[in-house]
Amino acid sequence: MAQKFQTLPGFRDFYPADCAARNYLFNVWRRVARRYGFVEYEGPVLEPTDLYRKKSGNEIVNQLFCFEDKGDRHVSMRPELTPTLARMAAARQRDFKKPLRWFSIGQFFRYEKHQKGRGREFYQFNCDILGEESVIADAELMALSIDLMLELGFTADNFRIRVSDRQAWVSYALSQGVSEDDLTDFLQVIDKMERTPPEKTEEKLKALGLSLDGIKAFIQSGAEASDSLRESLANLEARGLKEYVEVDLSIVRGLAYYTGPVFEIFDIGKGMRAVAGGGRYDQLIGLIGGVEMPACGFAMGDMVILDLVRETTAPAAGLDRAIEAEQSVDVFIVGADPSKKAETAQVVQALRNEGISLQYSFSEMKVGKQFQAAEQSGATHAVIVGSEFPEVGLKDLSDRSEEKIAFEDLAATLKR
Amino acid sequence: MAQKFQTLPGFRDFYPADCAARNYLFNVWRRVARRYGFVEYEGPVLEPTDLYRKKSGNEIVNQLFCFEDKGDRHVSMRPELTPTLARMAAARQRDFKKPLRWFSIGQFFRYEKHQKGRGREFYQFNCDILGEESVIADAELMALSIDLMLELGFTADNFRIRVSDRQAWVSYALSQGVSEDDLTDFLQVIDKMERTPPEKTEEKLKALGLSLDGIKAFIQSGAEASDSLRESLANLEARGLKEYVEVDLSIVRGLAYYTGPVFEIFDIGKGMRAVAGGGRYDQLIGLIGGVEMPACGFAMGDMVILDLVRETTAPAAGLDRAIEAEQSVDVFIVGADPSKKAETAQVVQALRNEGISLQYSFSEMKVGKQFQAAEQSGATHAVIVGSEFPEVGLKDLSDRSEEKIAFEDLAATLKR
Repeated sequence: MAQKFQTLPGFRDFYPADCAARNYLFNVWRRVARRYGFVEYEGPVLEPTDLYRKKSGNEIVNQLFCFEDKGDRHVSMRPELTPTLARMAAARQRDFKKPLRWFSIGQFFRYEKHQKGRGREFYQFNCDILGEESVIADAELMALSIDLMLELGFTADNFRIRVSDRQAWVSYALSQGVSEDDLTDFLQVIDKMERTPPEKTEEKLKALGLSLDGIKAFIQSGAEASDSLRESLANLEARGLKEYVEVDLSIVRGLAYYTGPVFEIFDIGKGMRAVAGGGRYDQLIGLIGGVEMPACGFAMGDMVILDLVRETTAPAAGLDRAIEAEQSVDVFIVGADPSKKAETAQVVQALRNEGISLQYSFSEMKVGKQFQAAEQSGATHAVIVGSEFPEVGLKDLSDRSEEKIAFEDLAATLKR
Repeated sequence: MAQKFQTLPGFRDFYPADCAARNYLFNVWRRVARRYGFVEYEGPVLEPTDLYRKKSGNEIVNQLFCFEDKGDRHVSMRPELTPTLARMAAARQRDFKKPLRWFSIGQFFRYEKHQKGRGREFYQFNCDILGEESVIADAELMALSIDLMLELGFTADNFRIRVSDRQAWVSYALSQGVSEDDLTDFLQVIDKMERTPPEKTEEKLKALGLSLDGIKAFIQSGAEASDSLRESLANLEARGLKEYVEVDLSIVRGLAYYTGPVFEIFDIGKGMRAVAGGGRYDQLIGLIGGVEMPACGFAMGDMVILDLVRETTAPAAGLDRAIEAEQSVDVFIVGADPSKKAETAQVVQALRNEGISLQYSFSEMKVGKQFQAAEQSGATHAVIVGSEFPEVGLKDLSDRSEEKIAFEDLAATLKR
């Protein structure tokens, strides 16, 4: 008996409808990124494990699909793209005019407990601007992330972009007497504040010489907290995107390497999920690639956003249309006369040569069954090749009307 | 000092021009497959190692990137797609109307000595018809593979499809008294004949009770050797594709699981490289998924075909145009008045909202430098936002002509 094989836990099979949904998202990501003048790149799925140790410390290393290859190299299936980007950009930085506007769509792997919205593999859109200090670059990424949501069919009723600035927190902490060495600990307290009992936060702050009331007052200061925030907000307002933006200083983002403005796209429905996030990381390319280059970027995964699309009326309708379109052909060819096989093959090739997509039955089949298959193919028209060839039948499958037409006029008629 | 990280041997970084070349190939694969009514699917990059043992024996297992994951599972980065396809199709065979016409574009991994045209990772287009016995399905795949070559810009001067039939060899061998048990050995002798000294082949054939002259005479019989060959050839001729086809019975393809017609696309220039190949495999889905389902398919990798595109005049020109187009924007916005930042942001967003792709300088920059950046961006037009806003300048970057235009008419003018 045949062995039964199964998909590994946390990995997905993309059957045609799933793959069409994935492609729809990829197309939106790609279309919006190109509109912003970004160019696509891609790195290897397998990298030296040290590349991830350098940047992200042990937490991410514990989640790696890592192993020794047949050449005794310590290698890992990539958990994220930024270290690869830093390596690539540093290696050929002289070859590209700054700033680089680069995006990528690829698959990533983390050995985590799998749950809704989180698997052991996922796709991610990464979008970065390298070699640019101006905060307008940060605003550009924020605008791009908003446009992704609009392109997917979301409105201001569905999401917000929450904008903050790590540098504002650093300045605040230093002005309050926190030492340089304690800054990382301090930012972690702020990052975890929402999920931590206030007494505990208060206690940790006290150890740093700060008070919870002081922190709360600073969060209240909002956009006034830094020049970067004011400038990026003014820019987003000039673009007409203000309604999507909230300043929320309580956002500092978990990753250690952010150095300036940070932001997250949030679902403001029941879920309150983060669907994208990023920020400025001016030190990382120097750390990984040995070349100083200011940088900012953000990423959006495929799982949470596609869940959100499916749960939201207008975006779900757009997705459904795309899935249906990707699985439909223009035309189905019905062979009504078994002695006309060669003519049927000729019609098939002639229409495809004109860019028309089509299916037909490979084996002999009753005409009624062929029409059934035509309905299932999603075709708008059936072409009937029978004994009158080179005259063929052209049937509109929506209104069932049928006309006779010369084969030589067929492609032109169908393309109208 | 920063550690210098490098790409693993046999793995590729896709900088923007490389990624654009890859995308060009993907687009051709996808466009032609859809024209043939195929739908896209994708499987996991990581699978249980046993999935590959079952089908392909130890040779492929020795080339696997395989390891134990953190849950002690024996897993492998996929070296090919067919076992995954067999698993997926068998698991949900009741959900899909037969025949299935499925294609996939994905990345694969083999730990091999890397050399020109062969890396440790590669992309591959897989295209299969499942649940169809008719040889017209085989002919459909042959036609599709020819159309891929034509779509890439190749002509009958550049390639041939060599068509053969394993079943014809099996019938021949059985008729000559070869036993069922010896058939696999026999097919291996034929597969290796071209690269083996004739004395050696003669000797091996003798052991099976056959002669080299007899084999040569059978190869001469060509399309007459089997009904399948005659029928698929007649079909390809009716499609007008005969000039691309050669019957060549010496082709049997290495993999053990083929059971009927097999074919390869060959470069007929100096290289004589195989760029794609496939055939019928009626037993495999039963073997892997426990569901009997006749099947045929073929695959094309990215590396040999892109080398061939680059070496061949018309296809190379098509590729170059695609690479340039993917890295260009429509418009570059020149900010000529630092007091008009908000207006510039407004123009940027308004044009993008109309689907126009554009770049601009994030930081303040002299107008002359901005025009340099405009040239490098590949834009056909520059829009100059200055003190006369809402009147803007529109400069044609090819003929250097410039006109003044109202901002509200800008998008419509650019879209013409």
